[in-house]
Amino acid sequence: MAVHGDMLAGGPIDLVVRGAAVFTAVAGAPTLASGGIAVSDGRIVAVGTDAELAGLAARAGRVIDADGAILMPGLINAHCHAACTQHRGLVENLSLEPWLQAVWEVEQHYVTPETTYLGALIGLSELLLSGVTTVMDMFWLCEPTAEAAVDLGIRISTGSWFFDGPGMCGIRPEEWIGRAEAFFERYDGHELVIPGTFPHASYTVGPDNLKAAFALAERHDGRFSTHAAETRAEQRIITERYGASVIRHMERTGLLSERTVLAHCVHLDDGEIDLLAKSGTTVAHNPVSNLKLGSGVARIPDLVAAGVTVALGTDSCISGNDIDMWLSMRLAALLPKGVHEDPTLIRPAEVVAMATRNGAAALGLGDRLGTLEAGKIADFILVSSRAAHAVPIYDLATHLVYAAGKGDVTDVFVAGRQVVKDRRITTIDLAPRLDAMRELGAKIATRTPL
Amino acid sequence: MAVHGDMLAGGPIDLVVRGAAVFTAVAGAPTLASGGIAVSDGRIVAVGTDAELAGLAARAGRVIDADGAILMPGLINAHCHAACTQHRGLVENLSLEPWLQAVWEVEQHYVTPETTYLGALIGLSELLLSGVTTVMDMFWLCEPTAEAAVDLGIRISTGSWFFDGPGMCGIRPEEWIGRAEAFFERYDGHELVIPGTFPHASYTVGPDNLKAAFALAERHDGRFSTHAAETRAEQRIITERYGASVIRHMERTGLLSERTVLAHCVHLDDGEIDLLAKSGTTVAHNPVSNLKLGSGVARIPDLVAAGVTVALGTDSCISGNDIDMWLSMRLAALLPKGVHEDPTLIRPAEVVAMATRNGAAALGLGDRLGTLEAGKIADFILVSSRAAHAVPIYDLATHLVYAAGKGDVTDVFVAGRQVVKDRRITTIDLAPRLDAMRELGAKIATRTPL
Ligand SMILES: [Zn+2]
Ligand SMILES: [Zn+2]
Repeated sequence: MAVHGDMLAGGPIDLVVRGAAVFTAVAGAPTLASGGIAVSDGRIVAVGTDAELAGLAARAGRVIDADGAILMPGLINAHCHAACTQHRGLVENLSLEPWLQAVWEVEQHYVTPETTYLGALIGLSELLLSGVTTVMDMFWLCEPTAEAAVDLGIRISTGSWFFDGPGMCGIRPEEWIGRAEAFFERYDGHELVIPGTFPHASYTVGPDNLKAAFALAERHDGRFSTHAAETRAEQRIITERYGASVIRHMERTGLLSERTVLAHCVHLDDGEIDLLAKSGTTVAHNPVSNLKLGSGVARIPDLVAAGVTVALGTDSCISGNDIDMWLSMRLAALLPKGVHEDPTLIRPAEVVAMATRNGAAALGLGDRLGTLEAGKIADFILVSSRAAHAVPIYDLATHLVYAAGKGDVTDVFVAGRQVVKDRRITTIDLAPRLDAMRELGAKIATRTPL
Repeated sequence: MAVHGDMLAGGPIDLVVRGAAVFTAVAGAPTLASGGIAVSDGRIVAVGTDAELAGLAARAGRVIDADGAILMPGLINAHCHAACTQHRGLVENLSLEPWLQAVWEVEQHYVTPETTYLGALIGLSELLLSGVTTVMDMFWLCEPTAEAAVDLGIRISTGSWFFDGPGMCGIRPEEWIGRAEAFFERYDGHELVIPGTFPHASYTVGPDNLKAAFALAERHDGRFSTHAAETRAEQRIITERYGASVIRHMERTGLLSERTVLAHCVHLDDGEIDLLAKSGTTVAHNPVSNLKLGSGVARIPDLVAAGVTVALGTDSCISGNDIDMWLSMRLAALLPKGVHEDPTLIRPAEVVAMATRNGAAALGLGDRLGTLEAGKIADFILVSSRAAHAVPIYDLATHLVYAAGKGDVTDVFVAGRQVVKDRRITTIDLAPRLDAMRELGAKIATRTPL
């Protein structure tokens, strides 16, 4: 049993989960057939077999018998726009550039602080219910999303968007830096909100504003995340405008670093992959969005081979149309095999790592999140194995990637707090919010003013 | 309201479903915002709005208020091997040919009539729970699978395998024809079992036995289904052996016809697509299996453009590893867009058609299954819209293909009989079967004899 601190000596134990098939997501670690974890003050204090945990269970405030469910770290979604809910399925069958124009045209009329909060609350609920305990999220308005995350009890890395054109809600380009600064101040040291800067992309934000956003992230030791190398058209635009491909342009602008998370990176040449690897930049892979918008299939096996940290994301429900990390995992595993006609590419354990500890590394929180280990924050989930598609299980990682799905997630804990119980959110009443979203959707469908 | 026969005049009504968002899957038909169907003696006798159905509801034996759920035809899985359950996730990360050898090596020791029945019962339960009401299924032993289907109440098209090498359970090549004949006789006119012949593939069954299987299907007016053009290696083997590509070899052998369903068809040249179109042969597309085994990505847009009927399948859980028609739909929509970098390819309504009325056409039952229409058999499902990922819904087909999933299916009816209620099988007690499968898996994992 791995134990943290002096818990065996008699510290208070809030919760013991036992009787689970334990998948720790620690590289190379064996799975435990019947074991669990002990939690104290929001931290994992022990990981072990049921026998090893018996003493801690005897004095725990609460004991959960997992009944053979899989216990694993909460999933970390490294790229999302949770507040997009209201436009799910509205603009379809277009490629990125005309699609963005069409989305922005509608958003102008329907993005407000109130609709952003509602959309985020539902989008983040969808994530929590599917076992995502941490999400890196960007949107025009980060403040309502952060508030929704706190109200729900999900961990979020977010912060101000940057955008050189006219923004939603009348925000002018020169305002972003002040908003970003204010967000850092407001959430400094917050338990659930991890501030960063989130410029939209290098084709919508010029080098000076990108540099300013990066400098701000550096000053606050926050993350810097943006869309990059998503489409061929983007590579063409950036090359014409700046005389260098997207990743080279970003490198010259000083944006590649260990604090940088680049969403997509579909269209890269070998030199660009090298730049990402050398700089310690993380790639957030969004296979569903890349397929749906016709962007292409990212070179994930090449990125992994080059030593780039690959995390997984969902992108938004407007290029999704659900936001399902299990589908991202499935496709991260399946796509390289099919497209390269090589079934040996990308193993299941690598994919689970992308959705857990690589996501934690992307957020700079590899020492606190992403695996079940004594001393880490108690973000964990239970995945039912009582389903027709869950028998038999020969290998847990194979099962998690190729057979399990969001419908199997029954219970979700963030920092030891149970936020999903028996497939229901415990922190808010979701049903009236779904009704409100249906009504908002009806207005948007008929272009009725708010 | 579309009404069948003289139901308005006073015939008995067993069931009315109302208050649903109705997706009939009839080409070009509008969706009904709040409506349903009436069922009498296992048939749909009316499809209409709630107001139109009020009279029938007043004298129905049972009325279900769908509470805004989506009412649609049951899904039709055009290619499956449900009895493979016991080997789910056992042989991984191999391409088709070495994978088949490894699977067959294990199957030799663990395929019996008893394990086939158990595996089929669980695999078919998985399908029913996900909203599949009809499946085209092939396996070494078709009899236990047919029995499991009847016990569960799922509709199945199956029949004898043909295989030139040594078969499982000691079946010799010359026995298949007699077994096939016996199966046709046993299930002649059966309500749920639709017999056909199912040779494994043209690389494992010679032209004479393929012809015999086809002739038997013709004589009984049954279906003929086999694997075809799944991998590049198969194309090479057949071309070397017979001097013609797979589909040309099949055409010369007289196997292409309107009763023929070919699983996979990943590797085709334009001439082969033409042969499929001209002969009225159906292609059963299995995107998950094709990706996982590294077989490749089928040319679905080209097949559709050529006028070939494309149905959807899951293949088995040993190349899956769940058997999820919703994932097949999602990938049928996503893959062409991503691989060809063209988001306009394959519209959602086309994909739902593949999983419903095209599947019915594949089985030769287009006049009886595949859409919600008065006069058709009452195979239908309810799909919940009370979920975070189900708001808002701007277009039902878009929602069904890109956001809905198997976890949303709450109720399933086959010929008017409710076989899934509130996400639970009504016809058998599944839990002890799952326990038995876990035990069988433990034996297989340690290669313990049965
Ligand atoms: Zn994005
Ligand atoms: Zn197959």
